[in-house]
This record gives sequence, C-alpha cells and structure tokens, in this order.
Amino acid sequence: MSNNIDYSLYLVTEAYREGYRSEYLKKVRQALQGGVNVLQFREKNASSLRQFELAKALKDMSQSFHVPFIINDRVDIALAVNADGVHVGQEDLPAEDVRRLIGPDKLLGVSAATVEEAVKAERDGADYLGVGSVFQTGSKGDATLIEMDEIARIRQEVTIPIVAIGGINAENVKRLPERHADGIAVISAILSAADPKGAAEQLKEQFLSKKHK
Amino acid sequence: MSNNIDYSLYLVTEAYREGYRSEYLKKVRQALQGGVNVLQFREKNASSLRQFELAKALKDMSQSFHVPFIINDRVDIALAVNADGVHVGQEDLPAEDVRRLIGPDKLLGVSAATVEEAVKAERDGADYLGVGSVFQTGSKGDATLIEMDEIARIRQEVTIPIVAIGGINAENVKRLPERHADGIAVISAILSAADPKGAAEQLKEQFLSKKHK
Ligand code: NI
Repeated sequence: MSNNIDYSLYLVTEAYREGYRSEYLKKVRQALQGGVNVLQFREKNASSLRQFELAKALKDMSQSFHVPFIINDRVDIALAVNADGVHVGQEDLPAEDVRRLIGPDKLLGVSAATVEEAVKAERDGADYLGVGSVFQTGSKGDATLIEMDEIARIRQEVTIPIVAIGGINAENVKRLPERHADGIAVISAILSAADPKGAAEQLKEQFLSKKHK
Repeated sequence: MSNNIDYSLYLVTEAYREGYRSEYLKKVRQALQGGVNVLQFREKNASSLRQFELAKALKDMSQSFHVPFIINDRVDIALAVNADGVHVGQEDLPAEDVRRLIGPDKLLGVSAATVEEAVKAERDGADYLGVGSVFQTGSKGDATLIEMDEIARIRQEVTIPIVAIGGINAENVKRLPERHADGIAVISAILSAADPKGAAEQLKEQFLSKKHK
C-alpha cells in the first residue's frame, strides 16, 4: 500500500495517561473527523500490554476512517495488531531490518534530519520520510532543529514523500520555509487543542493552501 | 527447541549503562564460563537501536556457549537477531499473540505468580514459566512476593518447566522452600558479584544439590 497515500495531515498520538483511555481515544477520533490523513501511534511509557490494547483500538478507528495506521518503533506491536506500517527514528531498529521483519507490503517511515540520513533511508526501504524538527517543540525533547532549507535539499536527493515534523502549529504552518513537503506531522497542535476537529481542519487547509502544486 | 533445555541456572542481564559496553559483555561472558544454562536479555531503558546491537552481541556469545538466548518483552528485537526465544511478563504482549508472531519453534517463557496465570500461560503456548518473586528483590521494583508453597501448587497443575525467580542468591538458594523448580533465575547474584564466574558455579552447585530428582 505504499502508493497513493495522502500524507497532507499526519497525526502522531500524544503520551498516554493511565486512566484517561476514553478521553485519549475521543480526541484522536475528533482529529480523524477533522481530516487527518495518516495516524501514527507513538507511545514510549506505557507497558507493552497497554500499547497493544491501545493499538488495537486505534487500528479499528483508523480503519473505519480509511486512514493508514502506523506504529512508532515497536515493530512487534505493529505485527501483532496488523498495522499498516511502522515508523522508526535513528535510534530505533535499523530501517533495513524493519523492512525485513514487516515484508514488502507494509508502510515504512523513517525519521531523517540530514540529506545523508534521507538517502540511506530511501535505499534501506523507506516509503516516506519524517523530516524535522522544523520548529522548536515541547513534544519531543530530543529533537534538534534542522536548517530551514534542509527539506529542499533532501527533496532534490530522494523521490519518496516527505512529511515535515516538529513544533508545527496553526501560526507557524504559514511560515514553513519550503513548499516541498508532502505533509505535516503534528501532535499537540491538534491533540492539545480545545477543539481537535476544528484544529485539524484549520491546519490541513492552511497547509494545502501553500503546498507546492 | 522447546525440549531438552536445561534451565538449572538462568541468567537475566542487568540494566545496561551507556558507555560500559565492554564491562557489561565481559560479566555475561564470565557468567557463561561459570555454567549459566540459559541467557535472557532484559533491557527496559536503552533505545531500540542499542538493544538491537547488544542483543546481536549477546546472541553470538550465547551461541558460542551453546546456550539458548532469550529476549524479554521485545519480540521485534528477538525476531531481528533471530534469538532462540522470547520471555514475556503479565504486562507485556499476550503469550498467545507472541506465539503467533514467533512461530512454533522458538522458546516462549511467561512470568506467572499464580496457578491461574501458570495454567493460562501453558495453554497459550508457553514452553516454560518464570515464577516469583520467591524472595525480596532490589532488581525488579514491581515484583511481588509469592507464597512459599506457590511453586509446589503450580507444579501440580502444569507440565512445563518452572524457573524460580526473584532475589535468589548464594545464601537463600539453600532456603528455597520447594524442590520442584527446574531452575533458578538470577541477575545481581551473578552480575554484581566480584567474580561472576565463581558466583555462577557456586549458585549452580547449590541449586543442583537440592534439586528434586
Ligand atoms: Ni522446541
């Protein structure tokens, strides 16, 4: 399913808080109602069992919206719930090993901050890249800012889709310096909003209005 | 490979400290030289990439000692390095899902603290059980003490091997109240010892001298 995926608005889940399952799922559902095109489950603290249970619920939900469901880092949980793909960072399992584990038909996304990482990811079997951080972010403490024209440089060297990530919100999405990203990935700009559906609609409209045709 | 495994002395790795790779591997090697029969890699804090790299090194090492190599929780890393098996606790992926992911030939160990958990684990495809904690332990903060005769009760209800775990050391191994365990699992009693090889030899001898024939 690696072709014809619309990456315009790519939602990454926020950290799960034990005891808030229904609120957590409700916000993701509202975001999907607002037009999210791809859903990534990213959870670094919950037990593997809890991750498995949440992933099953999110898989069902994204399927009902006909939206690809991708799991960050945990290839085993992706295989266990039959997710549509896996996303790995540079500190996760190597992309080529992940591709071997998930087979040729699942989506593989790889985080890249440099042209070198991007080219290697495409060679190792990535279907798309997450490139950032494009702005300062509170969501991922370990993320480093990339130079403003790095996405344009990466665009010249790889053919797979590029999703810009890192601190993107309704204000700065207009200042995204390049117009070469195929999509934007967000967490808090949607999930910390009072109205996740409205926030998703607004972000998507703003991104699409300046997207390179 | 679920048959004919000797579980007598089952080593679980200690937490990895970044920058101490050679010391970490050296202690495991010394423990293997002291007669460890099964090696489990358990790592909750390192990145997936670091876990993958350590697992590859430990797999090679255990293979050279003809000792089964098992990975705790992370089925994906076990598949990526072709480990001999996976061990899961009650908060990890469900045993039946793990069995589906690893296939029929890999070892599956499951932690059980009650007869009910033990019976379910065997039914779900476990090859052996880790039962404990039999003593107070500093290694696993979340472990709760089991009643002294729980291993004997579990032994009556399941046929698969039982490995006793939790706070076992050279002193209390003699006080293990039942003689029905097929092996003992240890971390610090070997890896925090000044002489891991000697500590392994001593523990194994003490366990075997009181093991049920
Ligand atoms: Ni077997």
